[in-house]
Amino acid sequence: MGAKRTYPFRMALITLTTDFGLRDAYVAQMKGVIASIAPLARVIDVTHEIPPFNVFHAAHVLRSLRAWFPPETIHVVVVDPGVGTDRRILLARASEQFFLVPDNGVITFVHRDAAIEELIVVEDRRYFLAQISTTFHGRDIFAPVAAHLASGVKPPRFGRATDRLELLPADLQLVTDKTCVAGRVVYVDRFGNLVTNISQKDLGSLLHRPQALEVRINEIPIGPLRSAYAETAPGRPLALIGSSGFLEIAVNQGSALQQFGPAEALSVTVRQVNAIERR
Amino acid sequence: MGAKRTYPFRMALITLTTDFGLRDAYVAQMKGVIASIAPLARVIDVTHEIPPFNVFHAAHVLRSLRAWFPPETIHVVVVDPGVGTDRRILLARASEQFFLVPDNGVITFVHRDAAIEELIVVEDRRYFLAQISTTFHGRDIFAPVAAHLASGVKPPRFGRATDRLELLPADLQLVTDKTCVAGRVVYVDRFGNLVTNISQKDLGSLLHRPQALEVRINEIPIGPLRSAYAETAPGRPLALIGSSGFLEIAVNQGSALQQFGPAEALSVTVRQVNAIERR
Amino acid sequence: MGAKRTYPFRMALITLTTDFGLRDAYVAQMKGVIASIAPLARVIDVTHEIPPFNVFHAAHVLRSLRAWFPPETIHVVVVDPGVGTDRRILLARASEQFFLVPDNGVITFVHRDAAIEELIVVEDRRYFLAQISTTFHGRDIFAPVAAHLASGVKPPRFGRATDRLELLPADLQLVTDKTCVAGRVVYVDRFGNLVTNISQKDLGSLLHRPQALEVRINEIPIGPLRSAYAETAPGRPLALIGSSGFLEIAVNQGSALQQFGPAEALSVTVRQVNAIERR
Repeated sequence: MGAKRTYPFRMALITLTTDFGLRDAYVAQMKGVIASIAPLARVIDVTHEIPPFNVFHAAHVLRSLRAWFPPETIHVVVVDPGVGTDRRILLARASEQFFLVPDNGVITFVHRDAAIEELIVVEDRRYFLAQISTTFHGRDIFAPVAAHLASGVKPPRFGRATDRLELLPADLQLVTDKTCVAGRVVYVDRFGNLVTNISQKDLGSLLHRPQALEVRINEIPIGPLRSAYAETAPGRPLALIGSSGFLEIAVNQGSALQQFGPAEALSVTVRQVNAIERR
Repeated sequence: MGAKRTYPFRMALITLTTDFGLRDAYVAQMKGVIASIAPLARVIDVTHEIPPFNVFHAAHVLRSLRAWFPPETIHVVVVDPGVGTDRRILLARASEQFFLVPDNGVITFVHRDAAIEELIVVEDRRYFLAQISTTFHGRDIFAPVAAHLASGVKPPRFGRATDRLELLPADLQLVTDKTCVAGRVVYVDRFGNLVTNISQKDLGSLLHRPQALEVRINEIPIGPLRSAYAETAPGRPLALIGSSGFLEIAVNQGSALQQFGPAEALSVTVRQVNAIERR
Repeated sequence: MGAKRTYPFRMALITLTTDFGLRDAYVAQMKGVIASIAPLARVIDVTHEIPPFNVFHAAHVLRSLRAWFPPETIHVVVVDPGVGTDRRILLARASEQFFLVPDNGVITFVHRDAAIEELIVVEDRRYFLAQISTTFHGRDIFAPVAAHLASGVKPPRFGRATDRLELLPADLQLVTDKTCVAGRVVYVDRFGNLVTNISQKDLGSLLHRPQALEVRINEIPIGPLRSAYAETAPGRPLALIGSSGFLEIAVNQGSALQQFGPAEALSVTVRQVNAIERR
């Protein structure tokens, strides 16, 4: 190890989000390194099934954690196609939680949702493993840095402050006016629910009359905004505000992905309609 | 959170069984909520790969936990096609363990195997999250209730007692007489082992002479009752009492599922045969 | 339980490597047994996705753990096609860590990499569960033995010392001379990286001029030895020393498995070339 020290009793929480899968020993090696440095830190696996190198997908998963974890939680993301290049590693603090990520845009939505209060370029090799491979910084840098952070090392110790960070391109931004909001499917979950980039907040005053809205996916109308899956018959599509606060297209006890095809090109609109149009 | 309180040091055990899969952040959100309320509770994942909405499958998994966990363990099942409807949530106590489940029949086999000593309808919103989505009660109700229970809150605090609970239909019950027991395949495991609803106990006195039994699956004879996989050659089928105490059809180092086809329609019989028939 | 005793506070680390998958309750049953005996032991899942009965694959996973875990870690492997036969169960100590494995060769590479300092045949039934199934020694023997070991029981208590152990056949050994090393692909990871049995050490002095080497897979040349994925264009193959210290063939942001086909028959050579040949 690069750094040998003893830390006081401290049960910090570390979450792991990677594209390493669960077939190999990669995740376990990271946990072994963490346990070696911070024996009492607790590790929660978010997922290791991020599609390989899919930073966009990982960014959406990361966004959905902040609201549900206690202060001081350390969220580690290793979806890192640039490993071995000179891409930077960032440690960010936002809403009393930490985010340790490659500087490849994976933090984009956390940055959009919450104020980043502190941003550090991780570069002090004393907190890395002594030998650093070119292909597995998750084990050799992210894991030991997270463990030292969990043990009470203060963020500025890991490197210098910065105010620059990579962000994902904004080409998915919403088109919106008073009677219509247009967005896109940006995430598909295990159930085949199609999650859009249209948040509850984006819908604003349209939500005052959810029954007077018409949601369309790729121009196919799928009715007004519902509030529970069971409001349509099994097998029927519906639109609702999902559990993370974004509009999603679902099928009651079925898969919207199967009904509407791969998510890449799917556009979604929410439009106010009047009784006559509705007929 | 609906309830803010401080709990004494307590390392309760919570198990999670869901159909959420491991690709998304849903399970992690539940663990974040649990850690926020009961920082010392330990969570063991049973599986998150229950086939979506398959209550029957989940009921079999739940049945197989009780014997192996210590007293006070809290088993949480979120396989919940009725989320957002008025289906109830139940907290049951049986053999010194707790079962927190949607009232959709998932507790059927626990109910059949063990006496339910206490049964509560979970409804006190003080133990829920402050905001409850219509689509993710796992995070907003089950997780915080389990965490409060793990922290020492007594069952009656969560709601009123009941003696009514949904049970799965009994159409799979055994046909049995002194020389023959007939049942069905009810669970297929990762190895393709076909687990039946015929328990060791159901076989009764037939077990006195296991070599004098003939097991058939869909009328195909597969020999007497064996006691280990290795008693047949690799690739050959056999019948034995599996590790959970039920008759199963297996293939030594292979998959019975592949040899006998999908489990839906498979009937299994165990019949006493005499030496002459055996020939 | 076969043994009831009280142990002092002790937070040992147990890792689990099995072919049980994550669909069924098998892994959870093991964890329930461990928690019943050693409530403070911490369990880290290495993987439960070893291909069923694939001892060779498991042996490679096990090899990759030792370097990253703290002293006293207990590594448990249950990939056990011989369950129910008279195959032995071994407890080995090497580099201050423990390895609890079926005696089927799964420990081969640990044995090759590190000195085994103590080797015990596990046979004292006082440390097993009271009832032992013929099909699930993972739960009935491995889990309770690991838990008792985690609780401070000394290795010789579990059985008699031995100096005999099964090893995997050596037919994959390297052919090597001063200017050329030949080996084989022995492991394919989740990213489709093809990991060979040629270690950094095997390459010896060849590594002094990595740019003067030519790596071939099944006689297809794929260039000199690189030091990071990003040294080739996305989609292009390359050879490098992977994160576990073995030569691997990878494709930058892609899958070498897809480009070069299934790993079974793949041979890999590393040869010194001079400038003229290189052209």
